[in-house]
Amino acid sequence: MKDELALYTYFRSSAAFRVRIACNLKGIKPEMRFVHLLKEGGQQHSAEYQMLNPQQLIPALVHNGRTVTQSLAIIEYLDEVFPDPPLLPTDPGGRARVRAIADAVACDIHPLSNLRVLQFLKREFGAGDEARVTWQRHWIGAGLDALEKILAFSPDTGAFCHADTPTLADVFLIPQLFNARRVEMDLSRWPTLARIESVALRFPAFEAALPQNQLDAE
Amino acid sequence: MKDELALYTYFRSSAAFRVRIACNLKGIKPEMRFVHLLKEGGQQHSAEYQMLNPQQLIPALVHNGRTVTQSLAIIEYLDEVFPDPPLLPTDPGGRARVRAIADAVACDIHPLSNLRVLQFLKREFGAGDEARVTWQRHWIGAGLDALEKILAFSPDTGAFCHADTPTLADVFLIPQLFNARRVEMDLSRWPTLARIESVALRFPAFEAALPQNQLDAE
Repeated sequence: MKDELALYTYFRSSAAFRVRIACNLKGIKPEMRFVHLLKEGGQQHSAEYQMLNPQQLIPALVHNGRTVTQSLAIIEYLDEVFPDPPLLPTDPGGRARVRAIADAVACDIHPLSNLRVLQFLKREFGAGDEARVTWQRHWIGAGLDALEKILAFSPDTGAFCHADTPTLADVFLIPQLFNARRVEMDLSRWPTLARIESVALRFPAFEAALPQNQLDAE
Repeated sequence: MKDELALYTYFRSSAAFRVRIACNLKGIKPEMRFVHLLKEGGQQHSAEYQMLNPQQLIPALVHNGRTVTQSLAIIEYLDEVFPDPPLLPTDPGGRARVRAIADAVACDIHPLSNLRVLQFLKREFGAGDEARVTWQRHWIGAGLDALEKILAFSPDTGAFCHADTPTLADVFLIPQLFNARRVEMDLSRWPTLARIESVALRFPAFEAALPQNQLDAE
């Protein structure tokens, strides 16, 4: 049986960007179903999409009738179901290091500057454009400063975050660096991260997943 | 060789609470090293702790000389190194469901109301006590509303989030419900979550991990 695989995505979503990279690394080509986060008051809030994901967040993956949400869970699932090439090292210590880097992005940087939070800051706190950018830069800066220290001083860091092949850590780091650029942060503040980005973007799997290279890009 | 295991913890930290539950479920007894998040301007910012975790966040686990940070990564690590009893189902679909529930707490609810974010809202946006509580209730409410739908309508939900034994999902859900109570939210809004909580808290592994039952509790 051929796998039925569909990804609900939006070109600018950082979490969808991660899943697109993971799919590309594994040579998986899901059908792309576009959900526009701004049109029609946000298509992720439609009754139809809520049936699929009550969290009303992007991305969601549907594989042979099963829906998986949350980019971390989706990518761990893909790594279990399509194990080649693996996105996690084989040793528990290495796996923990890679997961902790991904989690630092997923839990401590990205949740603070996604769309719904910026919309809430504007609506409830009257935060203007400048205040919202300051907010984003603060959390991105704190998180990437820590990741730079973690990566710069570790013998486990190679061409990528962990040794010389892409892992879950890079899948999460690269979209976050893209977001840092969007709020005009200078990546030379994090030389190790910038070096890893320059390596990663030479790989078609990362490059093809960039927001501007999606069919729904504006 | 006997395992050397130490957990850097703070009684009120929701992320440390998760790791305490996981350790209890597995019958692991790490040495508890207390880091007070408010005293001395926050002991997590000390030079000594920064060497261990440049993110300056709690918890961190040290196992035979290896440091693991991020509660998700720590608990996946513990589940790999001390596999009995498992905190994830064996099938990839079940594992993805359990991880997605944990991630919904870890990525979409908790990061918005942890201490450093509340401190920033106060300092930079002049948010008073009431505005900060409104902020917390908003994100906790949105996240738990979605989890109630995910859990109430799934045949995979049992006495716990996934079937009838505790998993990673419960390890993340129970501390988040504790935080909802702290901002005086009425858990009857989420009958399925409240039912799972009442089951979980009858287990010593969850009960012993509660903030008020820690040696550093105030």
